[in-house]
Amino acid sequence: MLNYPTKRPVISNKNKTNVNGKSIYANRGMTLEKDLSVANEYYLIHDLAVIHKKPTPIQVLHIKNLESGSTKIDDAYFLTPSTTDYNGIYKGKYIDFEAKETKNTTRFPLANIHSHQYIHLKNIIKHGGIGFFIISFTKLNEVYLIDASTVIEYFDKNESSIPYSDIKSKGHLIKYSYPILVDYLKVVDQVYFNEEINK
Amino acid sequence: MLNYPTKRPVISNKNKTNVNGKSIYANRGMTLEKDLSVANEYYLIHDLAVIHKKPTPIQVLHIKNLESGSTKIDDAYFLTPSTTDYNGIYKGKYIDFEAKETKNTTRFPLANIHSHQYIHLKNIIKHGGIGFFIISFTKLNEVYLIDASTVIEYFDKNESSIPYSDIKSKGHLIKYSYPILVDYLKVVDQVYFNEEINK
Repeated sequence: MLNYPTKRPVISNKNKTNVNGKSIYANRGMTLEKDLSVANEYYLIHDLAVIHKKPTPIQVLHIKNLESGSTKIDDAYFLTPSTTDYNGIYKGKYIDFEAKETKNTTRFPLANIHSHQYIHLKNIIKHGGIGFFIISFTKLNEVYLIDASTVIEYFDKNESSIPYSDIKSKGHLIKYSYPILVDYLKVVDQVYFNEEINK
Repeated sequence: MLNYPTKRPVISNKNKTNVNGKSIYANRGMTLEKDLSVANEYYLIHDLAVIHKKPTPIQVLHIKNLESGSTKIDDAYFLTPSTTDYNGIYKGKYIDFEAKETKNTTRFPLANIHSHQYIHLKNIIKHGGIGFFIISFTKLNEVYLIDASTVIEYFDKNESSIPYSDIKSKGHLIKYSYPILVDYLKVVDQVYFNEEINK
């Protein structure tokens, strides 16, 4: 059920990348999601946390009943999500985050985060939850965890982006590790539970 | 934005019910969802809790680009959800629940809850979260909150249903109130935070 690549798949413009003899779809914008999916499945199976990605909200307008007895959606459209993509529970605490990739190497543009996602994370923090962003600089091959309140500060100041250097200094690099490439709970431990990372 | 009916819409086989001069769609299986949506919106606006319904998981197979510039999904199908429908944060605690309606007046059939939803709620409880079911007996016009561990007991004993009398005795009636018809956090306060309900 779990699929652990031993090294990070190379991001290419082609759809398919061959890793360890297996074809891995490394579409831009899908790699981080795939890595987080592996991480969350690992956490779940090893009883460390229960964190899931929310399904993409879709408005279904028409369903067709097929002769086979199954149903097919033949008219629907994507809705704007009203929350972040990921939430769950870790060490008894409510966890909530949004994951984003950027090809940019000098800045993280804030435009692709919806304003209601900021509002949502503000609310989560206010109610005692843990909120953050996971930001992947795909061309630098670096993934950072940055507290939601830090990102919200830039948003509240009407900044259009966060400089890479600020993410490097205010955020926390998630080092690639095995068996989980993006083992973000290690960083969550350090940032929110004040635990040392074993190196 | 909020729509508070002053009395519960009558559930009928017709699609439309007229309440306070407004047409309300009272499809079977939609009424509880609608009531919970109003409750969650009220909790959010009044800064009491952040609880959302997860979108229905849908596998998109084909997207058509329309001339208008928008996109239409023209081939997709429903997936089995791997978690419950609702989760969020309340008083700093992780909250997770599934809501179900039944026309049955003597028993709540367990068949319409997926086995991985039980497993999910078991995990939530193990990790320190609050997990429950909200069960609506539509013909009795009664809605109950029942702790997930109680429902899991019946599932683990391979019972096909829970008698109504057991839900009445082991669960907690959510009294219809104003402005929120199904003010389930009142019962959550009583059951999980040991607070008295003001009558």
